[in-house]
Amino acid sequence: MRAARLHEYGASLQIDEVPAPRPGPGQAVIRVTGAGFCHSDLHVISGAIPILPAMPHILGHENAGVVAACGAGVNTVKEGDAVAVYGGWGCGVCDYCVGGEENVCLQGQWVGLSTHQGGYAEFLLVPHERYLIKLNRLDPKTAAPLTDAALTPYRAIARALPVIHPDYPVLVIGAGGLGQFAVKLLRLLTPAPIIVADVSAEKLDAVRALGAHHVINNKDEGALERIQQLAPGGVAAAFDFVGADATLALAAAATRRLGRVVHVGLGGGTARLAALQTWQPEVTFTLSFWGNIRELREVLALADDGRLTSIALDFEPLDRINEVRHRLESGQIRGRAVITP
Amino acid sequence: MRAARLHEYGASLQIDEVPAPRPGPGQAVIRVTGAGFCHSDLHVISGAIPILPAMPHILGHENAGVVAACGAGVNTVKEGDAVAVYGGWGCGVCDYCVGGEENVCLQGQWVGLSTHQGGYAEFLLVPHERYLIKLNRLDPKTAAPLTDAALTPYRAIARALPVIHPDYPVLVIGAGGLGQFAVKLLRLLTPAPIIVADVSAEKLDAVRALGAHHVINNKDEGALERIQQLAPGGVAAAFDFVGADATLALAAAATRRLGRVVHVGLGGGTARLAALQTWQPEVTFTLSFWGNIRELREVLALADDGRLTSIALDFEPLDRINEVRHRLESGQIRGRAVITP
Amino acid sequence: MRAARLHEYGASLQIDEVPAPRPGPGQAVIRVTGAGFCHSDLHVISGAIPILPAMPHILGHENAGVVAACGAGVNTVKEGDAVAVYGGWGCGVCDYCVGGEENVCLQGQWVGLSTHQGGYAEFLLVPHERYLIKLNRLDPKTAAPLTDAALTPYRAIARALPVIHPDYPVLVIGAGGLGQFAVKLLRLLTPAPIIVADVSAEKLDAVRALGAHHVINNKDEGALERIQQLAPGGVAAAFDFVGADATLALAAAATRRLGRVVHVGLGGGTARLAALQTWQPEVTFTLSFWGNIRELREVLALADDGRLTSIALDFEPLDRINEVRHRLESGQIRGRAVITP
Amino acid sequence: MRAARLHEYGASLQIDEVPAPRPGPGQAVIRVTGAGFCHSDLHVISGAIPILPAMPHILGHENAGVVAACGAGVNTVKEGDAVAVYGGWGCGVCDYCVGGEENVCLQGQWVGLSTHQGGYAEFLLVPHERYLIKLNRLDPKTAAPLTDAALTPYRAIARALPVIHPDYPVLVIGAGGLGQFAVKLLRLLTPAPIIVADVSAEKLDAVRALGAHHVINNKDEGALERIQQLAPGGVAAAFDFVGADATLALAAAATRRLGRVVHVGLGGGTARLAALQTWQPEVTFTLSFWGNIRELREVLALADDGRLTSIALDFEPLDRINEVRHRLESGQIRGRAVITP
Repeated sequence: MRAARLHEYGASLQIDEVPAPRPGPGQAVIRVTGAGFCHSDLHVISGAIPILPAMPHILGHENAGVVAACGAGVNTVKEGDAVAVYGGWGCGVCDYCVGGEENVCLQGQWVGLSTHQGGYAEFLLVPHERYLIKLNRLDPKTAAPLTDAALTPYRAIARALPVIHPDYPVLVIGAGGLGQFAVKLLRLLTPAPIIVADVSAEKLDAVRALGAHHVINNKDEGALERIQQLAPGGVAAAFDFVGADATLALAAAATRRLGRVVHVGLGGGTARLAALQTWQPEVTFTLSFWGNIRELREVLALADDGRLTSIALDFEPLDRINEVRHRLESGQIRGRAVITP
Repeated sequence: MRAARLHEYGASLQIDEVPAPRPGPGQAVIRVTGAGFCHSDLHVISGAIPILPAMPHILGHENAGVVAACGAGVNTVKEGDAVAVYGGWGCGVCDYCVGGEENVCLQGQWVGLSTHQGGYAEFLLVPHERYLIKLNRLDPKTAAPLTDAALTPYRAIARALPVIHPDYPVLVIGAGGLGQFAVKLLRLLTPAPIIVADVSAEKLDAVRALGAHHVINNKDEGALERIQQLAPGGVAAAFDFVGADATLALAAAATRRLGRVVHVGLGGGTARLAALQTWQPEVTFTLSFWGNIRELREVLALADDGRLTSIALDFEPLDRINEVRHRLESGQIRGRAVITP
Repeated sequence: MRAARLHEYGASLQIDEVPAPRPGPGQAVIRVTGAGFCHSDLHVISGAIPILPAMPHILGHENAGVVAACGAGVNTVKEGDAVAVYGGWGCGVCDYCVGGEENVCLQGQWVGLSTHQGGYAEFLLVPHERYLIKLNRLDPKTAAPLTDAALTPYRAIARALPVIHPDYPVLVIGAGGLGQFAVKLLRLLTPAPIIVADVSAEKLDAVRALGAHHVINNKDEGALERIQQLAPGGVAAAFDFVGADATLALAAAATRRLGRVVHVGLGGGTARLAALQTWQPEVTFTLSFWGNIRELREVLALADDGRLTSIALDFEPLDRINEVRHRLESGQIRGRAVITP
Repeated sequence: MRAARLHEYGASLQIDEVPAPRPGPGQAVIRVTGAGFCHSDLHVISGAIPILPAMPHILGHENAGVVAACGAGVNTVKEGDAVAVYGGWGCGVCDYCVGGEENVCLQGQWVGLSTHQGGYAEFLLVPHERYLIKLNRLDPKTAAPLTDAALTPYRAIARALPVIHPDYPVLVIGAGGLGQFAVKLLRLLTPAPIIVADVSAEKLDAVRALGAHHVINNKDEGALERIQQLAPGGVAAAFDFVGADATLALAAAATRRLGRVVHVGLGGGTARLAALQTWQPEVTFTLSFWGNIRELREVLALADDGRLTSIALDFEPLDRINEVRHRLESGQIRGRAVITP
């Protein structure tokens, strides 16, 4: 089969001919019809996050396609089924995995980001059927980016829901792909008013169109004051999809007592929490991390029957993967790029 | 002031001239502009539920109006403010009250249903300002029935939310006033598909218009089977606003493992729970009871800016209260009657 | 290997020579050193609960022993490890299983109670390493009954803990094996006062010795009144390990608002819940069902270093399994019988 | 009556003769028999925390005594009752107060730390009976410090309990008064192993005697490594009663995924949270703040019948209050000083 492989950090991906995988007992092979090209792939390719155990390696952790072959003992999917692939594969044995939180497994072996090859290829080996979510109406190409770009904000929101109430606004910082899905998901999951802060007027227009009630350009002075006017006493929850020093400080300062700050974006920032000074008592501050299998099933159920729609997607064939990489690096991709091997 | 008073069980209410109340320290007096006439008032008037400590007595526990006078120490409302009145008054000292669940106080002294006089009168004495919720845009007349008919389903739903997921339907039994508010509130609080069961085709049409995804006439045979087709494995939560033997049995049988049955309607039925036979393991079965102050504030926040709209209301002056009673008894009130003293 | 097999319902178990199992990929074989003989086995043997898919069949669902062989890909245990075996095996794919609640899987294939053979044999095949819990100090013989008789009350208590507070008593109905473990576990998990009700003075003496604060013989009149004296306003949680009509009624009547009734014992009774009459508002009534893998790990961690001690055990070789059956039937086993193949 | 009053920041307290308070409607006056002298009083007296609205002022926020007089409408206590006084007085109207979290009220008017005079006096005015907790057996002198020094760790622990399991240790940093109560309370509330870190060998001996399973002197190098050996993968919860930069960093680094860091001590430190570097995903970091009324009732129920015993107390008459202040400043008070006016 054809696969885009990384041979050394910093290099271009090469389109290689490699043997197609075959499913062992309990496994399945997927013909990949869509593989989202995620911003974090850039850091792996460049070597900034040098986590690959060996090279050459096939990246691609946002995958969907059609079941091509099933190993013995696979019962819940069959050849020809359209499926999305949960990618946060864990050991299946530790307390996190048996407790349903496979995404935080300390021995996690994520698809495309470990010894497991990813989806920038014609076929993908999936080690267990529990990772496959059947799609009824949704085109797998469209489903691929949901497995990360929608799942990550979904978990962040789902875990904050107990402190979100109709009479307190919530704050979303960052109106890129994840922030846009966050706004769509918040509209589905709560009637609470939504405030979005970003530095791009264009992105703020986009989230307003998606249903954000208030938008704030935090390039301007006084973003915190404007939030406080809209949410006297503070917002119930703040989701930071940027994760820079300044955005984390804004999220902490804006949140009311008993509220929750959810740090999502891995922008390299440090939250500096000084009691009673930079944050309020009884705020919980947490770092949300991708999502678990149940959460992905919930996201895809929403998408499959149209309750959740996609953000803008840009489909590109495998041959143009290096071009996609460069366009993403230079900020020319709007929404999300999806490779269609 | 003029007040409609009950002089003995079974009698008509009499319009009497009585002294208007005056607020003591910490208290407020409300000029009542709307007082919902609730079905449970019928049972009190007839003597079926003979809970009144003395007669003559002013009923009316769904109240809203304008602040007419405040006692010393009242800080959060002032004369002229439009307000709705929380009615589940408790002792303020017991574990339920200090824990925020005043509605389940064992020494509860509910407005209009205890020694406290109710809202079928020009003025109403409210013993503490925490019971008053300021309205910005909502007409108090419209707000009155929300304090019970919307609050009760809101609490029932809010407490089931942790087990409700986008990929499992929920079931509402009973499409009357509370059931209609339940559908509206579910649409705001969750994207889960909503199934409604009732015996009236007309009411089922009404809830379908409000956003119910599936309706089932449970006069027909096979209601459970239809629900099971729509929700293989069971619904995540079932809300029974009727509370008869048959509806409670349906709710229990329809609910999936780890799901929740919420009994709301006080229809006099008995739930018969035989393990593994009439219900599934790990289902929680509970009886929800009106709502607390925080929950009412949340409901009114939704209503005040139009996110939650009212069901059909029928406004009638105090003089026609006995007529309202008879129309309600004979099933001629659609939606909810509101007395406008 | 030697195994005690059931050839037809109602018959005696036969000691047969059968082939020892061999582990496939991901599987393990255990040399069984202890297999608890559970009361529910009696009902399967007699045919009262005719759930066996085929005969002859090896029963035994409370198992522990020593790892004899591991299939390919097993990483967390190795030959020679002392282990207890989690027995509530599920499909591993459904929402319950991936959510960590494998015990409520609708396709559950429990060890010894499905196509999977059980532990009344020299060796036992375990289909996945996640079901094995390593023991450091605890003798596997002693661990075997913990996998059911301690796990079941542990889950029941763990899920009620959020409503248990130091200033409200809890109620345990039934002072047999599970009730005795419940008292031990409650003493570890909460400082709340413990009331135990049973009809046997001898068993009540036993639980008093284990730390129950109050005991009540509910053969006597007035058990509910005595509980109400000890717990004015009601107990926070009631655990019914009997599950008869009368005990379920007692549990429901004794529980305070916002409290929890946990039905555990499958005594065939029906709970009759009439709102405001036989139970209080906002009580949650639920049926707890065995336990999940995480919960068993927690129980065994407590037992492994001596924080949780066993109830009385009666060890018997495989040859005497029919004798054990008859002694259990006639109430002559105190504590728990363990077969030591 | 005699009262110790502060006339200006930095000055000694003066014993003045002032009018005794009289209870208005709903209020009570307490004859103070014990008033804990808290470390935070030092900062108020010195002017480091200049929060007093007017002078002269009576400090003292950990109070207990005997009811001397009740205003009209007080029902739950009567003259002569021994009581402890909840001190985190709120407005009684805001969302925090009506939700049972009066301690985080933004308009909080804490006893002795606001316009309300405190307990360093013969009599204390209490504005509402809900703040009084009746004592049956416990001497009010002993109860006084529990209202802060035991309540604060109780809340911190209670809110972390859902993530504490028997098979993961918890970490307590700081073995002073609050840390000692934390160890006592953890022993009552969970069987989880307890690790305590402090810089004083003497205090570590003290907590070991109270039931801590492991103690670590974090003056030494390698405290984090020792904790990681005792808790591979991290502790389930870390309670920091110091609140310095270094202890907050230790707490964050030591805590496992899905665990909880509770910041309690107001030592002026800043937590620096860099995702995946100084803390793990899905850890929640929170600042716990005194406690609410229900929590104090629970603490006092434990103390009243001896389940919770006091730490060492040092009783001193009102006349020696300045001496107490100086001994506390110079670290000469072991346990807790209680003024006995």
